[in-house]
Amino acid sequence: MTPPVTTRATAPQILARCRALVRPALTQAVRRLHPWPAEMAAFSLGWSEVGGRPVPGPGGAGSHGKGVRQALTVLGAEAAGGSGADAVAGAVAVELIHTFSLLHDDIMDGDETRRQRPSVWKAYGTGPAVLAGDALFALAVEILADARNAHGGAAVRHLAGTLNDLVRGQAEDLLFEARPWTGPEAVSPGEYRAMAGHKTGALLGCAAGLGAVLAGAPAATADALTRAGRHLGVAFQAVDDVLGIWGDPRVTGKPVHGDLRRRKKTYPVLAAVSADGPGARELVALLASGDALDDADAGRAAALVEEAGGRRATLAEAHRHLDRARDCLESVPLEPAAVGDLLTLAPFLVDRAV
Amino acid sequence: MTPPVTTRATAPQILARCRALVRPALTQAVRRLHPWPAEMAAFSLGWSEVGGRPVPGPGGAGSHGKGVRQALTVLGAEAAGGSGADAVAGAVAVELIHTFSLLHDDIMDGDETRRQRPSVWKAYGTGPAVLAGDALFALAVEILADARNAHGGAAVRHLAGTLNDLVRGQAEDLLFEARPWTGPEAVSPGEYRAMAGHKTGALLGCAAGLGAVLAGAPAATADALTRAGRHLGVAFQAVDDVLGIWGDPRVTGKPVHGDLRRRKKTYPVLAAVSADGPGARELVALLASGDALDDADAGRAAALVEEAGGRRATLAEAHRHLDRARDCLESVPLEPAAVGDLLTLAPFLVDRAV
Repeated sequence: MTPPVTTRATAPQILARCRALVRPALTQAVRRLHPWPAEMAAFSLGWSEVGGRPVPGPGGAGSHGKGVRQALTVLGAEAAGGSGADAVAGAVAVELIHTFSLLHDDIMDGDETRRQRPSVWKAYGTGPAVLAGDALFALAVEILADARNAHGGAAVRHLAGTLNDLVRGQAEDLLFEARPWTGPEAVSPGEYRAMAGHKTGALLGCAAGLGAVLAGAPAATADALTRAGRHLGVAFQAVDDVLGIWGDPRVTGKPVHGDLRRRKKTYPVLAAVSADGPGARELVALLASGDALDDADAGRAAALVEEAGGRRATLAEAHRHLDRARDCLESVPLEPAAVGDLLTLAPFLVDRAV
Repeated sequence: MTPPVTTRATAPQILARCRALVRPALTQAVRRLHPWPAEMAAFSLGWSEVGGRPVPGPGGAGSHGKGVRQALTVLGAEAAGGSGADAVAGAVAVELIHTFSLLHDDIMDGDETRRQRPSVWKAYGTGPAVLAGDALFALAVEILADARNAHGGAAVRHLAGTLNDLVRGQAEDLLFEARPWTGPEAVSPGEYRAMAGHKTGALLGCAAGLGAVLAGAPAATADALTRAGRHLGVAFQAVDDVLGIWGDPRVTGKPVHGDLRRRKKTYPVLAAVSADGPGARELVALLASGDALDDADAGRAAALVEEAGGRRATLAEAHRHLDRARDCLESVPLEPAAVGDLLTLAPFLVDRAV
């Protein structure tokens, strides 16, 4: 007997399918805002320019970003035996929360650009950007609370815990900046991992689990999907850290060696420093000096991180979390087609442009 | 037959009773935060100094602010036939949301002091203050979503709509600043009233209604209490506007004529300007000039607002809303003792120090 031939969708196709399912509700949600925060939200989502003029072409029609979180929510619902339609309110809520967090994080981190455009605070001012973030946060809670879904209450509880994790992760990340590179007060790779779990893992975990919750899945199923999403989020963050140093600026939209110039305590750098060889010591001397890092310094720092094994360790970390995400998906009975999509998506997210 | 002698509690006693009921849960809630936003929250609530040292004496033991919102939630539950204990999670949530909104509004408005101390962004920096506000917002949603109450889902829905009104009111208020004092683009008293309804009315309305929702009251009861709270909120804002011009700095903690120096478009000023007499024209000339207002200018502007009837109109507006709040409380059957407390509290809030 020959097994049935299945044409498996590619990761970009899966993401596009989920975006198409969610986009009308997301557009409608943003329209509920006061026109001013709505304009800032549309700018932040890549739908419009400063001033509100729509972005023409596929950028405007699609959106910035791949829509990873909304896809996880849709696939989470499908994996739990529901339909993607069950998950739409949840998918909208997680995209709104993601946009809120980018907006406020850019203020806190002083990041002037995002996706090759000015960040919202740079384009509209700090006060308005605070307001737009608050508006998106409030809207996310309202969309989920008002969802016509028998499991809306559980869904709001699921989201609420995540919101607190997100804030905790951002607090940890900001506090890392003031800590030294070496000695007992240095940030350990373990502390970094916990921060990434809160800052990035929590929302991806929430996204996947929320789909299951909205589909009325048993707690064990929602829990397994939440854990899978969380591991995927930590893997995603690790890859982001690699791209923040070695990524192609044309692809990442960030300056080359940007995270090193900002002396950001990312996983590759912390792993390299904790290796404690001569390269690590030269790296610490560079990073701990008060001087601005010029192109040559930043390039040298990147080479030192690589030589000390920081890049290798980070990618190994990403793949470890990817494996754990797979284990979580195998730990409970789920719909095979949706699991197939999740297993297609996961390595795509981790192997992007590295 | 002689009616039974009832000793009615005074407004300060009512507020103190409600604060005592809510305070343990509020303290416990703030402890759930990451230590850094928790410290900023405690500072903002008047419990501690910058650095975390507890404020000694009644200020620290009590808190800054009267706790009007938490009292409305407790009394809302009691008025609907429930117990104050039913309302505690809701009272905590509204106090957290109130603190969040003060924190973020001070950033947006550039206000450097609050209650005679530095505002949080001034004391801790803008980025950390954004974070602390987000943390309080997230915590409020979590506290209410996790409340062991059969009506928790309805309570979250009730709060979610309010959050959007709050943001809308802040957007309207910020946009007023850029508009002219006269002509077709001028802010009308009606627009100001709508803004105050969102910015201040919504949360006081939510507070009173939330108590009823958590007590399992019928929709009409919760709705009447929500409307009563909203009118009280607009009255409260009107009185705040009067205090922002004529209030005693030792009582208000704000500089004398502060709102005039900042050229804030408040109800007394808008009412005076719309009166359109010679005094109003002199007032517009003062306010529309680009020059900084010195003590003499600010004093003259205050006198002109008063002469043009701005103060009188604002207090009349406050009393109109107070009457409507009373009407709302009489529109449905409620527990007389709690209504008595609400009727004691309402004029106390409106007549404070005017």
